[in-house]
Amino acid sequence: MQKLSYNIKCIIEYDGTNFYGFQIQPGVRTVEGELNKTLSNIFNEDIKVIGSGRTDRGVHAKGQVINFVVTKKIPLERLFYAINKQIVSDIRVVKLRYVPLDFHARFSSKKKEYRYYIKTKNFSAFDFNYYDYETNLDVELMSEAIKLFIGTYNFKGFSACDINPLKDCTKTIFDAHINVKRNELEFVFIGTGFLKYQIRKMMSLLIEIGKKREKIETITYILETQDRLKFTKVANPNGLYLYHVYY
Amino acid sequence: MQKLSYNIKCIIEYDGTNFYGFQIQPGVRTVEGELNKTLSNIFNEDIKVIGSGRTDRGVHAKGQVINFVVTKKIPLERLFYAINKQIVSDIRVVKLRYVPLDFHARFSSKKKEYRYYIKTKNFSAFDFNYYDYETNLDVELMSEAIKLFIGTYNFKGFSACDINPLKDCTKTIFDAHINVKRNELEFVFIGTGFLKYQIRKMMSLLIEIGKKREKIETITYILETQDRLKFTKVANPNGLYLYHVYY
Repeated sequence: MQKLSYNIKCIIEYDGTNFYGFQIQPGVRTVEGELNKTLSNIFNEDIKVIGSGRTDRGVHAKGQVINFVVTKKIPLERLFYAINKQIVSDIRVVKLRYVPLDFHARFSSKKKEYRYYIKTKNFSAFDFNYYDYETNLDVELMSEAIKLFIGTYNFKGFSACDINPLKDCTKTIFDAHINVKRNELEFVFIGTGFLKYQIRKMMSLLIEIGKKREKIETITYILETQDRLKFTKVANPNGLYLYHVYY
Repeated sequence: MQKLSYNIKCIIEYDGTNFYGFQIQPGVRTVEGELNKTLSNIFNEDIKVIGSGRTDRGVHAKGQVINFVVTKKIPLERLFYAINKQIVSDIRVVKLRYVPLDFHARFSSKKKEYRYYIKTKNFSAFDFNYYDYETNLDVELMSEAIKLFIGTYNFKGFSACDINPLKDCTKTIFDAHINVKRNELEFVFIGTGFLKYQIRKMMSLLIEIGKKREKIETITYILETQDRLKFTKVANPNGLYLYHVYY
């Protein structure tokens, strides 16, 4: 007798402050670890969630997507209630949906949107975990610079040193722009996917350009040469949010 | 030749999330440790700040007060700027003032105000470090119960087990009430001072009363008997803020 299985897609948000990132690791508190534990307990079977991708330690998510396959069918309202009741409060389920068995949170994703927040005024101690803080930025220059990332490039020059040297680092960025708000800047990046540290390295270079310590041409240079050593700074993870995954 | 000294009073705020409490301890990140480090560096002399009192790990401050004595006179605007530039961003200086040499942040304090926040609706993952979360609380009953704390009592029954058994636990609470807001409850406590865990134990009992798992009479019983074993739960530190110190 064949066992039926069901695939559930789940949008979650989490405050990355108290997690050692998304990916499960022994002995530390991770988003994936907490999800597996709670779901395995609710379904009374061993569940391993699939995430749309990892997020680093300290990085937040407003719209991370996961899926998981189970053999029991539980009404979604009940499941929604059960997860949010049982799981640690810095992870919340936002939406749940039954999806076809071939849906895969990582492989089925078409685009990802990340946002990065910089507070430019009235910085409070309570902003620390959620913003970067910078003053005297030339926002016009940064707005011009950020457009240079739009397109299909080999982004190896903006990736972490420990990624597989054989990995294809070609990615497409569809949109990148800055929304200027009263006391903050909101940086929006939409692309096929992003390499480890890519957004934080791009952000860090944008900040240096905004402070006139780097030239706008450095972006083009790194995109052309893939020279990872030209610029090695990585922006603070606290300001970064996985905002949406498109399927 | 006598060296002149200057006493500086300083109101600070901090997000308690990433600190092991206020009090300095070797090897861990503490508020006092960061203050001493930054100030000693700015004044180029060994500075040990005096706090109005300790706060536990995870507890926040909107209006903690410290003072410190120095031998150099720096204009306050310059000092304000220097501290906020050099110190970790989850501590912020709010106000600075030169005060007479006999001002002592702890001994001169007349009253302290703490606030505790419970979110009752629309709890997000990003509220985790800043609120407790409870649903189905009988707020009317809690508002009646919180008034029982007002007055001069021996609060030993609401203190931590590890405090000195010879310590006088008599304290006065001048005001205690609940402000009911749209999605949250704000608990206000104003008193001469509070024992270790006192507010978190009072809060925990109030929550149990609001959930009808404890009777309102338990408050009176503990205040009369000082029986620490009658109720041993301690509320989550994340919802607690040292709000104001009165001099």
